[in-house]
Amino acid sequence: MADPSLLVVSAHAGDFVWRAGGAIAAAAMRGERATVVCLSYGERGESASQWLAGKSLDEIKAIRRAEAEAAAAALGSDIEFLDLGDYPLVESQEAVAKLVDVMRRVQPTVVLTHPLVDPYNGDHPAAARMALQARVLAQAIGVANSDGTYPSSDEIIGAPPVFFFEPHQPEQCDFKPNVLLDITAAFARKKAAMECLPAQKHMWEYYTDLAGRRGVQVRRNAGPNLGLPHETMGEAYMRHYPQVTSVLD
Amino acid sequence: MADPSLLVVSAHAGDFVWRAGGAIAAAAMRGERATVVCLSYGERGESASQWLAGKSLDEIKAIRRAEAEAAAAALGSDIEFLDLGDYPLVESQEAVAKLVDVMRRVQPTVVLTHPLVDPYNGDHPAAARMALQARVLAQAIGVANSDGTYPSSDEIIGAPPVFFFEPHQPEQCDFKPNVLLDITAAFARKKAAMECLPAQKHMWEYYTDLAGRRGVQVRRNAGPNLGLPHETMGEAYMRHYPQVTSVLD
Amino acid sequence: MADPSLLVVSAHAGDFVWRAGGAIAAAAMRGERATVVCLSYGERGESASQWLAGKSLDEIKAIRRAEAEAAAAALGSDIEFLDLGDYPLVESQEAVAKLVDVMRRVQPTVVLTHPLVDPYNGDHPAAARMALQARVLAQAIGVANSDGTYPSSDEIIGAPPVFFFEPHQPEQCDFKPNVLLDITAAFARKKAAMECLPAQKHMWEYYTDLAGRRGVQVRRNAGPNLGLPHETMGEAYMRHYPQVTSVLD
Amino acid sequence: MADPSLLVVSAHAGDFVWRAGGAIAAAAMRGERATVVCLSYGERGESASQWLAGKSLDEIKAIRRAEAEAAAAALGSDIEFLDLGDYPLVESQEAVAKLVDVMRRVQPTVVLTHPLVDPYNGDHPAAARMALQARVLAQAIGVANSDGTYPSSDEIIGAPPVFFFEPHQPEQCDFKPNVLLDITAAFARKKAAMECLPAQKHMWEYYTDLAGRRGVQVRRNAGPNLGLPHETMGEAYMRHYPQVTSVLD
Amino acid sequence: MADPSLLVVSAHAGDFVWRAGGAIAAAAMRGERATVVCLSYGERGESASQWLAGKSLDEIKAIRRAEAEAAAAALGSDIEFLDLGDYPLVESQEAVAKLVDVMRRVQPTVVLTHPLVDPYNGDHPAAARMALQARVLAQAIGVANSDGTYPSSDEIIGAPPVFFFEPHQPEQCDFKPNVLLDITAAFARKKAAMECLPAQKHMWEYYTDLAGRRGVQVRRNAGPNLGLPHETMGEAYMRHYPQVTSVLD
Amino acid sequence: MADPSLLVVSAHAGDFVWRAGGAIAAAAMRGERATVVCLSYGERGESASQWLAGKSLDEIKAIRRAEAEAAAAALGSDIEFLDLGDYPLVESQEAVAKLVDVMRRVQPTVVLTHPLVDPYNGDHPAAARMALQARVLAQAIGVANSDGTYPSSDEIIGAPPVFFFEPHQPEQCDFKPNVLLDITAAFARKKAAMECLPAQKHMWEYYTDLAGRRGVQVRRNAGPNLGLPHETMGEAYMRHYPQVTSVLD
Repeated sequence: MADPSLLVVSAHAGDFVWRAGGAIAAAAMRGERATVVCLSYGERGESASQWLAGKSLDEIKAIRRAEAEAAAAALGSDIEFLDLGDYPLVESQEAVAKLVDVMRRVQPTVVLTHPLVDPYNGDHPAAARMALQARVLAQAIGVANSDGTYPSSDEIIGAPPVFFFEPHQPEQCDFKPNVLLDITAAFARKKAAMECLPAQKHMWEYYTDLAGRRGVQVRRNAGPNLGLPHETMGEAYMRHYPQVTSVLD
Repeated sequence: MADPSLLVVSAHAGDFVWRAGGAIAAAAMRGERATVVCLSYGERGESASQWLAGKSLDEIKAIRRAEAEAAAAALGSDIEFLDLGDYPLVESQEAVAKLVDVMRRVQPTVVLTHPLVDPYNGDHPAAARMALQARVLAQAIGVANSDGTYPSSDEIIGAPPVFFFEPHQPEQCDFKPNVLLDITAAFARKKAAMECLPAQKHMWEYYTDLAGRRGVQVRRNAGPNLGLPHETMGEAYMRHYPQVTSVLD
Repeated sequence: MADPSLLVVSAHAGDFVWRAGGAIAAAAMRGERATVVCLSYGERGESASQWLAGKSLDEIKAIRRAEAEAAAAALGSDIEFLDLGDYPLVESQEAVAKLVDVMRRVQPTVVLTHPLVDPYNGDHPAAARMALQARVLAQAIGVANSDGTYPSSDEIIGAPPVFFFEPHQPEQCDFKPNVLLDITAAFARKKAAMECLPAQKHMWEYYTDLAGRRGVQVRRNAGPNLGLPHETMGEAYMRHYPQVTSVLD
Repeated sequence: MADPSLLVVSAHAGDFVWRAGGAIAAAAMRGERATVVCLSYGERGESASQWLAGKSLDEIKAIRRAEAEAAAAALGSDIEFLDLGDYPLVESQEAVAKLVDVMRRVQPTVVLTHPLVDPYNGDHPAAARMALQARVLAQAIGVANSDGTYPSSDEIIGAPPVFFFEPHQPEQCDFKPNVLLDITAAFARKKAAMECLPAQKHMWEYYTDLAGRRGVQVRRNAGPNLGLPHETMGEAYMRHYPQVTSVLD
Repeated sequence: MADPSLLVVSAHAGDFVWRAGGAIAAAAMRGERATVVCLSYGERGESASQWLAGKSLDEIKAIRRAEAEAAAAALGSDIEFLDLGDYPLVESQEAVAKLVDVMRRVQPTVVLTHPLVDPYNGDHPAAARMALQARVLAQAIGVANSDGTYPSSDEIIGAPPVFFFEPHQPEQCDFKPNVLLDITAAFARKKAAMECLPAQKHMWEYYTDLAGRRGVQVRRNAGPNLGLPHETMGEAYMRHYPQVTSVLD
Repeated sequence: MADPSLLVVSAHAGDFVWRAGGAIAAAAMRGERATVVCLSYGERGESASQWLAGKSLDEIKAIRRAEAEAAAAALGSDIEFLDLGDYPLVESQEAVAKLVDVMRRVQPTVVLTHPLVDPYNGDHPAAARMALQARVLAQAIGVANSDGTYPSSDEIIGAPPVFFFEPHQPEQCDFKPNVLLDITAAFARKKAAMECLPAQKHMWEYYTDLAGRRGVQVRRNAGPNLGLPHETMGEAYMRHYPQVTSVLD
């Protein structure tokens, strides 16, 4: 059994905080490795206030990077940046190859990324498609690393489960959660991470509130475990591959 | 945390063996309670050879009942029969009320039943709809038992997860499994249970082979757990409500 | 190989003409048996002009029956009426049992009926559900006829393919045709049958035109058979069970 | 053009407040007629605290009725109760006939009801199915009123659009909103109506917050109307029939 | 509130006439601005008769352009051509950037384009994907114009609603209309525009007839507005984002 | 009527054997032309054992090619290789143009390829998308061949039906078969072809068994043709365009 290793593929620098911060913090709090890969800084599409303030492209990228690093630290996660550009995030074989390298290095046992549909933001599905393609390629011993060398049997990866995290307008993205994650214990860390993104202060409350709503659903679907507290916090996910288990519960 | 208790709602006397025998045996082998409720004996729709042999309706029901009891014993499960008739299994409030009584008595922590679509056999979706309705009614303190008494707080049930087991022609039933259950250790018991149904001898091989195919998928989707043996056996399920968990894996 | 026998289950007295008249006429022109079963006369829901003219219920039923008999004769089909009432057409085990009797008598090799979704007319899906249930029950030797006798091996039916014919607003009924039937040669008979329904004269042109539109699609999808004439006429169907064939074409 | 008349078909006594209170209040504030029909009081399935407090069935029904009347008054709506029982709300032709009578009397130009899928509460889809069936039957001049008389041309209804209001766990109910209603101006009335239901105090905040979230989506999808205020409140709906319009906007 | 401005993104030179001519004419007749952008001339894939007549590629493009200009004039619309080539219309960032420029210049309040699925013509979904991507990018102040300059706050666009117009074989394109547009008053202009395309004379009748069929559906779904005339003409659309409104009707 | 000509577009060198070997052999046994086009050799993604054995890329390609040629010969089919590379199979206009050339040369009356969804292998949908695009382009007289010449009227193709063959995990690929092909007579050839792929010996039994399972479904859905033998073998397909026929059966 491989050591737990959580990999989060995030289109922009802030996405992983709002949508998967609880899962990341929970993994870190269990002592597991967590790694975030930001494909871009969200410098063009998700930094309107900084553009309005007259910042340059490079300044904006630096600001977003620093914020994301602080948030990852607050969650207890490593973070890397591929700087592929956003709006649009353009899919390419070069970008996928970089993700293959990351996966072979990180050896993820779980992968989180965006859902495949988002009519409000094309970068999100593009990130998901690249993450999914890289996950398949990284399994094959005949697929070279980006430096042209071939992987050893130890360097290829298994077939880690993939979970899509929640988009901003879930129903419009055909996001029907089939996993509700209890993040009550990890929520303080998620809150701390959100507060590392001062330009989006109105989102702090929005996502705290969302965690409460998903928490209500955690309790509603918790089966016979009636003892969950009123203040349960949750995050919603869609599992992309079937769950493998030896117990139905 | 409630004691584990598995409840299987089966339209006909044989269904639970072929489609969920592994899950039932696995629960029993873990020392958990398992209960099968057969809504009918399958006396009209799934007993063609006995009709051709000239048996009477009562004889056929007795034969099917004895076989099912033997199979349940082989799996390690309790079994009950509601004798509601088949082909068609007619939905009624009386039948649902009997299921409410069963559920309040058995206090299931997991419910298994048929999927909601089956263009080849209308009894299967009818059983599923009644099981789902009973599960919701059994949760309500204002819904009386079938004898007119009201349940106490202890007698109502929680919200146990529901899994649909595999139909005979899965794709035509819109059956897209999202849970693959490893039944390798329990398969010997499932085989013994199948052999309690001598009239359907050709099915023994068919469902052994199906377990092998689902076992291949267990291994393919097992993530980084690469060590699963070649002879892994599986059963496929569809989870009807979102999974609640505190760990993504 | 059984003799070809086409059975059409129609909710109201006129439905089979507009939606399946071409298929019926084509079968009759090949010398095959065709039988229409009208579950109701459409006396309440599809006879507004007669109600406005002050006719009584019995008068309206007689008018609709006579029209449907004339149309069936024009197509070359037998016709029967179960007089189950409409608006609503209420599903019942008695009604299904009558359909079982019809099917065992007619021994259909093909069944046509309404699609399962119609937000504009609940009688249509009700007819389809009963036809589908009867088709499954009629296959079982343990299911008695409505007079309480049991069928012989010869009296049960096989598993005839089922096709849903086109509803009035196809997209709203999730009607995605997967079979386009060339009815060019049979169209004159369909036209004659439509003209047996004088109260709905505006529909003659509407359904002639629809046949032309479906004919355009016949030609577009005809593969390499480029020689189809410009005036090709068509009807659209949805196949409910998979096609069985020994040649892909 | 008929006078505007809003009809809300609600399975239980409280549903219309939480899910459609804004739409009702907005109609009333425009001086339009609004009518709520409660099919049951929610006496068994949605009154757990009163059962735990030892109230009798009749007492609970009276409490729920009084609350609903107060809430309707706060919204500015008429209200009627059919007292059909809940958990389960059983579908019947008699119940549908009562709804036909209501519709012919109220002459709705818009109908609101529950969505057709709800795995958590079977009464909601049952209410929706009956509302939809009644709406079709009420259009037919050949369908008698429940007292056996036939309607005049003035008494039948047109084909009012139907909107499904938001269920408690929208994604699990396949609820993909295609209409976002701005209820900012009507929200104070909705709040007053919610406060007429003192036993569900925790819901006041829950649905205030939901209105805020849907308000964010109102603003996000408002096209070029950039001036909507930050505190925009919204309700989400699914339109069941296509919109008819003479302007695309 | 922005001035109404309708933008139509058409894969080939003729598409906008057949599928959206009524909407364009209606906007023009209300005195609103309408702009058509043809991504290609349809020179390879939709000009078979001209190829058979031995015309050169440049001749065909000139013919198609002249026809489209005449048709746009008949409708009362501006028209532009991006000349991106067809069969296939290849998606590229350069093409999307040109559409961003157009959108920032035209400031659309409504966008019309092809649906996202068309198994008969890949250029149509390609056009739709580019239109949707450009619409999102054009909203972002951090996305440069194609000349490298950055937009001002006035130059970015809002979030105009998007409507997909009807494809040639609607059901095969998963086209389920949720908006039916009454184009009765505008139909004479649409007819005049169709007649600007003499090489496709058989289409004139085909699309006149389609307008009649959609008109029947306009009347059927018009709710209580019973007074629509028999000769109502219509066009069908699919709204891609939720409608925002302050009145349900 | 064109001469029958079956074209199979296969992403990797082995796919056509396992998934469509029966259809190919059956066509060949009827004396019809069959042609397989392998887009790649499967050299990187489906040759793990050879990589582990230390073979070079060129050696692996040669091995896979020889195996595929032997298998095609056993089936009675021609075979060609485009050598486009795999893992990933990258879509390009150049690759599509090569397929256009093949199609114009082979004049297929039926096309088989992979389904459009496969979360386990992105090369399969990529092959399907290119095959579908090429099939549309090859119909257009204005689309040049890859050498820049234009096709004559005889060189363009019609609109051959397309069938998707079965993927490895059908339900996960949204593969709902609507055609079940009886390959009983052709199975011996398919078996011989499978045995040309010695490195995948465990697959021989797996796909023999699958043919048996699909054979059970052939018999179940065979309608009134009750005489099919117990050992019926089958292959499952999804028809992508509507079937055109002059007889419903």
